[in-house]
Amino acid sequence: MELIHEQLKSAKAFVFDVDGVMTDGNVIATEDGHFLRNFNIKDGYALQHAVKSGYPIAIISGGKSLGVNKRFEQLGIQDIYTGQEHKEDAFNKFIAKYGLEAKDIIYMGDDLPDYQLMKMVGVATCPLDAAIDIQHICHYISPYPGGRGCVRDIIEKTLKLQEKWWSDESHRW
Amino acid sequence: MELIHEQLKSAKAFVFDVDGVMTDGNVIATEDGHFLRNFNIKDGYALQHAVKSGYPIAIISGGKSLGVNKRFEQLGIQDIYTGQEHKEDAFNKFIAKYGLEAKDIIYMGDDLPDYQLMKMVGVATCPLDAAIDIQHICHYISPYPGGRGCVRDIIEKTLKLQEKWWSDESHRW
Amino acid sequence: MELIHEQLKSAKAFVFDVDGVMTDGNVIATEDGHFLRNFNIKDGYALQHAVKSGYPIAIISGGKSLGVNKRFEQLGIQDIYTGQEHKEDAFNKFIAKYGLEAKDIIYMGDDLPDYQLMKMVGVATCPLDAAIDIQHICHYISPYPGGRGCVRDIIEKTLKLQEKWWSDESHRW
Amino acid sequence: MELIHEQLKSAKAFVFDVDGVMTDGNVIATEDGHFLRNFNIKDGYALQHAVKSGYPIAIISGGKSLGVNKRFEQLGIQDIYTGQEHKEDAFNKFIAKYGLEAKDIIYMGDDLPDYQLMKMVGVATCPLDAAIDIQHICHYISPYPGGRGCVRDIIEKTLKLQEKWWSDESHRW
Repeated sequence: MELIHEQLKSAKAFVFDVDGVMTDGNVIATEDGHFLRNFNIKDGYALQHAVKSGYPIAIISGGKSLGVNKRFEQLGIQDIYTGQEHKEDAFNKFIAKYGLEAKDIIYMGDDLPDYQLMKMVGVATCPLDAAIDIQHICHYISPYPGGRGCVRDIIEKTLKLQEKWWSDESHRW
Repeated sequence: MELIHEQLKSAKAFVFDVDGVMTDGNVIATEDGHFLRNFNIKDGYALQHAVKSGYPIAIISGGKSLGVNKRFEQLGIQDIYTGQEHKEDAFNKFIAKYGLEAKDIIYMGDDLPDYQLMKMVGVATCPLDAAIDIQHICHYISPYPGGRGCVRDIIEKTLKLQEKWWSDESHRW
Repeated sequence: MELIHEQLKSAKAFVFDVDGVMTDGNVIATEDGHFLRNFNIKDGYALQHAVKSGYPIAIISGGKSLGVNKRFEQLGIQDIYTGQEHKEDAFNKFIAKYGLEAKDIIYMGDDLPDYQLMKMVGVATCPLDAAIDIQHICHYISPYPGGRGCVRDIIEKTLKLQEKWWSDESHRW
Repeated sequence: MELIHEQLKSAKAFVFDVDGVMTDGNVIATEDGHFLRNFNIKDGYALQHAVKSGYPIAIISGGKSLGVNKRFEQLGIQDIYTGQEHKEDAFNKFIAKYGLEAKDIIYMGDDLPDYQLMKMVGVATCPLDAAIDIQHICHYISPYPGGRGCVRDIIEKTLKLQEKWWSDESHRW
C-alpha cells in the first residue's frame, strides 16, 4: 500500500476506459438500435474537479456514442478518443500532446482490450469487477465496481495525496 | 440515538439534494445527450405525504433537468431550485419564505457541494453511500443508499416521532 | 410454514400492486416527464402461465401509465385497474366479477396504500423490501425483493401446491 | 468439476437464451409499449471473440425485438432466432446447418421454456439466478447472475480450455 501511495503522488495525468469503468458494464438497447449507458454522478464530480485542478484527462474507448462524448464534454474533458480499435495510438497522441511519458499516467481499464496499455503505464488500476486477467496485472484494484465509484476513488485518492482535493472550488460544480 | 431523536422531533422542514439522494447516483445518457434518472416510489410516497401533512420541502440541485422538475411537481413539492451553482442562495431564500431558521431544517446531501449547507443546518443527514467526507459531518447516516429508500427513511422517522405519519390520508396517494 | 401452505392451497385468485411489487420500486424519469419502469421476465412467465391455467388475476395500481397496461395486456391479464386512488373499489369490482370472496384472494403489496386491502384478504404477501408496517401484517414475506422475483415466487409456490405448475404449456410462452 | 472440464473441452458451439441470460431478466417498459433490455459489455467481448475464433453461436429467444437483433448482429452473430414459441425447431435448424449434434452444444438458459432443450444438449448451463427447476438439470451453474457475466464466464472457460482465448485478436474488439 505504501508503494501505491508513492506512485499516485508522482502521477501527472489520468486515462480512463469507458464501459465497465465509467459505467457498470451494461448497455441498454433501445428498439431502434441505440445503446444507453449509466454514468455515476460522484465519478462526475471528481472528473470535473480534476479538470479544474489542471490534470490532463483522456477517455479512450473502443465504442462510439454521441451520448458518451456529450457526457464527458459537459465535465470539461477535452481529450475524448472514441471508436479506437487499437487504444495505443490514442494513448500516444495524448501523452505527446502534454509532453508526458507513460510512467506519468494513471490508467483504469477493465478488460482485455486495455491489457497492453496497462502493461505500459506508471499506475495500472481497475474496478473491483474487472476481468480476472486484468486484475492480475494491476497495481491497484479499487474496492468499487465499474460505474459505482471506482473513478471517484482513484481521483480522490490521488488528489488528496497531492493536496489538490480541497480547494475553493471543492464545494461547487 | 437519543440525541438524534430529539433533533428530529423539533425539526420543521426538509431540504434534499437530488443526485445520489433522490437517485442512486446514476444518470442514463441517451444518444441525444439527455440524462435519465431513477427515482424511488417509496421515497415518493413519503414526500407527498409530508407535503399533505404541511411540511415545507425544498429540492436544491446543482443540475438542471425538466424530468427532475416534473417528478417533484407531481408529488406536490413547490420549492424546487435547480441549476444552483452555490446552494446557499437557494437555501436562504427557502428558509426566509417560511420564516424558518437553519436549525429547524433536516438536510440530506451526499457529496462535497452539500458540505457547507450541512455544516449550517439543525440535522445533517446522508445516504449510506455518501462521500466519506460528508459522512463525517452527519448527525445521522441512513441505513439505505441513495435512491433506495434513504429519503423515505428520514421522513418516516421524523413524522412518526412527530405523530404525523398515520392519518386518514395515509392509505392513499 | 404449514399454515401458509394450507392457505395457498385453497386460494383462487391473485391481486397485485405494481410499483415495488412488479417493479423494483424505481421509476426512470425522462426529459419529457414520462416514467419508465422495470419489469421482471421470470415474473412475466409465471403470470402468463397462471392466466393460461385459469386463475383470475388483477392488477390494482394508484399510478397510471400506458406502458404498464401494455405490459400486462401482453401477458394475457384482463383485469387491469390503474389510477385507483382507493384500491378497495377496484378490488370489490374484481371479486364480484368472478363470484369470489376476499378470503379466496392472494394479495401482494408493498406500501401503505395497500394496507387496508391486505387486512381484508385471505393471504397477504409482500416482497422482501416492503415498507416495515406492511411486513408486520403479512402472512408471507417473499425472500425476493420487488421486481426481482417476488411475484414469480408466490405464483410458483401456489401453483405447485395446487398441482398446476407443470403442464403441457409449461415449456412455452 | 473434472467432468465438466472434459465436457467443455469437446464442445463445438454455443446456444444462448436472451432474457435472464444475456440480460438481468428485467425489461424496461416505455410509455409507447416498447421494452428496453440491459446487455453486458464483458459478455459482448467474449461473444465477438468466440465468433472471430470460429465457433458457431446461436441466439434462441421466445421474444422478438429489433434492439435485441441489432445487439447481436453488431457482435457478428449470424444465427439469431427470435419469436420462437418452441425452441426445438430453431435448435434443430442450427445444428443441421453446421453439421453438429446436440451433444456438441453448450446451452445456457434460465427458465422453463429452456427445459426440454437443456435435457438434450451436451452441456446444460445456467446463470446463478436461474429458476430452481432449471438449476436442477444443469451440468454447470455459473457463479454470475444473468446479464452480469454468466455468458462471459462460460465462453472464457471453454475457450481457455480449448486454448483459443489468447490470440492476436484478444486485445481489440
